[in-house]
Order: sequence, then C-alpha cells, then structure tokens
Amino acid sequence: MHCFVTGCAGFIGSNLVDRLLQDGHSVTGFDNLSTGQENFLAQARNCPVFRLVEGDLLDLPALESAMSGSKIDLVVHLAANADVRNGPDQPRKDLEQNTIGTFNVVEAARRAGVKRIAFSSTGSVYGEPDQFPTPETAKFPIQTSLYGASKVAGEGLLAAYAESFGMQAFIFRFVSILGERYSHGHVFDFCRLLKQDPSRMRVLGDGHQRKSYLYVQDCINAILIAVEKATDKVNIFNLGTDEYCEVNDSIGWITERLGVSPQLDYTGGTRGWTGDNPFIFLDCSKIRSLGWAPKLTIREGILRTVDYICENHWLLESRT
Amino acid sequence: MHCFVTGCAGFIGSNLVDRLLQDGHSVTGFDNLSTGQENFLAQARNCPVFRLVEGDLLDLPALESAMSGSKIDLVVHLAANADVRNGPDQPRKDLEQNTIGTFNVVEAARRAGVKRIAFSSTGSVYGEPDQFPTPETAKFPIQTSLYGASKVAGEGLLAAYAESFGMQAFIFRFVSILGERYSHGHVFDFCRLLKQDPSRMRVLGDGHQRKSYLYVQDCINAILIAVEKATDKVNIFNLGTDEYCEVNDSIGWITERLGVSPQLDYTGGTRGWTGDNPFIFLDCSKIRSLGWAPKLTIREGILRTVDYICENHWLLESRT
Repeated sequence: MHCFVTGCAGFIGSNLVDRLLQDGHSVTGFDNLSTGQENFLAQARNCPVFRLVEGDLLDLPALESAMSGSKIDLVVHLAANADVRNGPDQPRKDLEQNTIGTFNVVEAARRAGVKRIAFSSTGSVYGEPDQFPTPETAKFPIQTSLYGASKVAGEGLLAAYAESFGMQAFIFRFVSILGERYSHGHVFDFCRLLKQDPSRMRVLGDGHQRKSYLYVQDCINAILIAVEKATDKVNIFNLGTDEYCEVNDSIGWITERLGVSPQLDYTGGTRGWTGDNPFIFLDCSKIRSLGWAPKLTIREGILRTVDYICENHWLLESRT
Repeated sequence: MHCFVTGCAGFIGSNLVDRLLQDGHSVTGFDNLSTGQENFLAQARNCPVFRLVEGDLLDLPALESAMSGSKIDLVVHLAANADVRNGPDQPRKDLEQNTIGTFNVVEAARRAGVKRIAFSSTGSVYGEPDQFPTPETAKFPIQTSLYGASKVAGEGLLAAYAESFGMQAFIFRFVSILGERYSHGHVFDFCRLLKQDPSRMRVLGDGHQRKSYLYVQDCINAILIAVEKATDKVNIFNLGTDEYCEVNDSIGWITERLGVSPQLDYTGGTRGWTGDNPFIFLDCSKIRSLGWAPKLTIREGILRTVDYICENHWLLESRT
C-alpha cells in the first residue's frame, strides 16, 4: 500500500517509515523538520519508494498538494506538538499544531479521496480517570491539560469525518512511547540531567507518579495490526503494556544502567506539573484481542532507550 | 455582577441579556450580528448598564479589547455556528466558529483575568449513546457530527483552561432550545414550510427520531442556578426536560396550532441527515439536584414557539 505519514522525521514517525518500507510499502512522508531529525530518515531516503515532502500542517494547500498524485491507501497522522508540560506557557500551540493541524490533515485526506486515516492520540485524554486499568469505554472524561484537550479535539474530528464522509478512522491512545530515536520526555530529561551532573538530580513531583511506557516497535506493531484487522468505521485502541511503574522505578533503572548514584531532589506534590497525570495505566485488552502483545517490558524499554541515548549524545545536545 | 455574553444578539443570548439586566446585573454583549438580530437587543439597548460590542470571535484582539476596562465576573460564551445539519458542506465552519472561536474566548478571558466562564455545549457530544436518559458520566463518546466534534473540543478547552489557569468552568449540554426569538431549527423549518404550502410538507427521516426540547427561560434559569450554586472547578450539566417526543409528535402539535392538515412526505431512514441523532434524551438529575426544574413541558414549549413565530413573520423571511 501507499502510506502518507505526517511527522515522518519524528521519533515514532521515522521508525514507522522504516518499517513500512521494509514491509514493501511505498511512503510519502510529510514533516516541517521543526522537531523532526532529517538523519532519522537517512535509511528511508535511500529507498526509491520513499518521498519526503517538507511542509507545515498549518498549510492546507501544501498538505493537499502532497497528497495528490498517486493514490494514498492510508494516512498515518503522527505530527503533533508533544510538549505536554509547557502547554500553559503557550496555549495557542496545542490548538494550532494539534487541533487545527489535525483538521487540515483530515480535510486534505478527504479532498484527496483517502478513505483510511490513523491518528496518534494519548492516554492523557482520560484526564484523571477513576477506573484502572482504564478502558476505551471509560466514562466521559474531563480534560486536565491543553495537550489532552487538543488530542480529544483531534479524535472528534477523525470520528466526525469518518461518519460524515464515509472514511475509516483508527485512533490510538498511547502511553509514553520509548525506544530508538526517542528524543523527548522524561527518560530523555533524566539522561540529560545526569550527564550534566551525575551527583544530583531534580525530580518533578514526589517520584510516586505512576506511568506506563511502551516500546516503539511494539507500538508500531499494534498500529499495523489494527489497520489490518479492525473493521469498524471508528476504531479506538489503547496502546500500552499491562504494567506500570513509578517515576522512582524508572530513575532506579536509568541510574543503574548509567552507573551513577545521584542524590534526588524532589520538588514535591503528587503531580510533576499542572495537568500531569499522577497515574496512567490503560486497559489494552481490545488491541490484544486482535493478536497483538508487546515484546518488551517497561524496564526493558527504558534500558534500551538509555542505551540508545548514550550512543547518540548528539541528540542530547540538539534539544535544549 | 458584570457579565460578558458572546452571541448576545442571538436567540438564547438576547434572552439571557434581558434576564441579567432585569436581575440588576451589568452586561457587555459581543456579537458579529451575522445571525444575531439587532432588534432582539432593542430592550437591552435602552438600559445604561448594557454595552454592545460588534466583533467577531475569530478576532482575538477585539475580544481582548472588549473584555478590558471594567472587571468581568462571568463570561457566558454562547456564540456558535449552530447549523448542525450542514456541517459536511462546510467542514471548516465548525472548526472556526466553534473550536477556534471558543479558544479565543477562553484565551481573552484568561488575559483579562476573568475567573469564571460558562459555555453552551450540546447533547450531541454524546454521539449515539447506549444509555438513556444519558447522564453526564456516560461512556467516552464517539463523535458523529462535525458540530458535536467542535463542541467537545470547546468543552476540553474550558476544562483545560480551568485546570491550567485556576479558572472555574461551567459546561452546559443543551437539548434543542425553544421559545421566544427562536429562529433556527426544526420547529422553525416546519413553520416556514407550512406557511409556503399548508397542504403538504417534506419531513427528513421517518418522523420517529426522538428529540428533547427545553424552553429558553427554563434554560436560562438553569444556567443562573448553576453559576450561583455549583462549586467544582469544572461543572458539567445536562440541560433538558425529563421527557422526549417524536418528530411526528411535534409535527402534530405544530399543525394543530396552525390549523393545517398537510400531507407528510417522509424522506425515510432513521436519521434526518448525516450525523442526526435518532434519539436525544438527557438525564438532568444533576442540575435538578441544585433545585432547578423546568416550568414548561415540551408540548408547551413548542406551542409557545409556534405562537411566537406566527407573531413574528419577519423572522421567517429574514432566514432563507
């Protein structure tokens, strides 16, 4: 099939592109290279059935033009502002990059006659649920972050477009994703801080926030199984492991792997920042029922990520 | 208190403005007069504590400027594209008028230091629920219309702003509202069609769609009770009656009141249009627990609306 991947130079996007090409598909990638890394696409660019279009999600004509020409079987919309923590400092960014950006992608897809579209949402759309592990059918959530609000808006757009225009939608509610090319988030931040000063580290919150992580190749396997097997008009899947860890657990695994013993300075409180979910743990039995299972545990995913970051110091320096 | 009302020249907005002024509050109204009617504000404009600002929701500086000056105790954001049926013909309209418009309102309110904001959402955000009457805590819905998607996006913005910036949010999920100054929706359409040709009328769907309606003064009472009594950071209330009727029931009441006996031509199918909810019936026990109850039944609300339309033929002519 011919896939159109937004955010193709990003962490998850570039891994997905490599996998799709490896599986024999052709890929058009779309990225504005604002946070994406061109060298994540080094392997893809050697492939004749890969095409990179540099453009911005806010530029609807650019998206339309990129989707024209050869028929697209599936759009995978991964491009987003993934900076959850700093939402309140720049509230318009989530609206533009996530909500309006997603509108432009689904609208360009509609105009190009694309019938299937997949979207990376987040477990943050559940806000602070009272049900754990949280299923896709949890009660109507109250949003607690601008990021979550922008993603729930994107979900609504995909579903409404599917209903209104005869498209098929795939919505994935991710936990935090880890692995090769990971370049944003809490394991990354810890590695950077420990590289600067291995003797002590500031930890947002009390360290007892419970989080769930998924290895990027497991995430990609889940996406590919879902688009192959799910048949509803709107298909919503939680993507995570059947476990969670405390921030303190992940700090333990990271410091052990790095061979450091920092003093930990906790900022205190049950939340790392406004809108931080103190507990994310998703019920993934729906995607498991399609035959998917993650291959790596949270601990294995974190260790592999630490190794990747250690081998790619340039990434730590490129993101300040 | 000093209230800021968007959509102040609209059906619900102008009734709310009159009520607030009558209760001794001062009001700044904001409207672009695109669908609002200046003469709905005739009474308000005689009042020295009412000020009308003509401006568009997409113009953030205009909103900011309108909110500056005297301290605003409450923003009531009612302005919206309420045209549910034609969403698929102009998909960008719901995004702009509802989602981006709501962002601009909450952002302007934040910048102006406003701490309390109320928002008119819709029972359509439940999509096609499997629980009737549908409570606020129904399961995570799948959107079925661009209108519903734009309103769920607005809800998310209010909640996230409340969480992020210490504001208090009031979200009202309305059934269809009826009464004086009603100028859009299915009773309006039926009256217009029957005035053109009382001998026959085209009905979208099979007439068995079950709908719920609320009289506008009952709606306003509920809003005022909620903002007075509700104390959560994010307060979400269904607003409707504890009954529903079929489209055929409302046609019966309307034709009886008008003294006509048209032949009815049904377009067929369980939905009037793509995204039409075949059954809307909200559980309103939460707002009732604050002491609110509607004063008019659905039938009484419809009859009063028909009388209003008959006395205000100019409205039928002004909306083509």
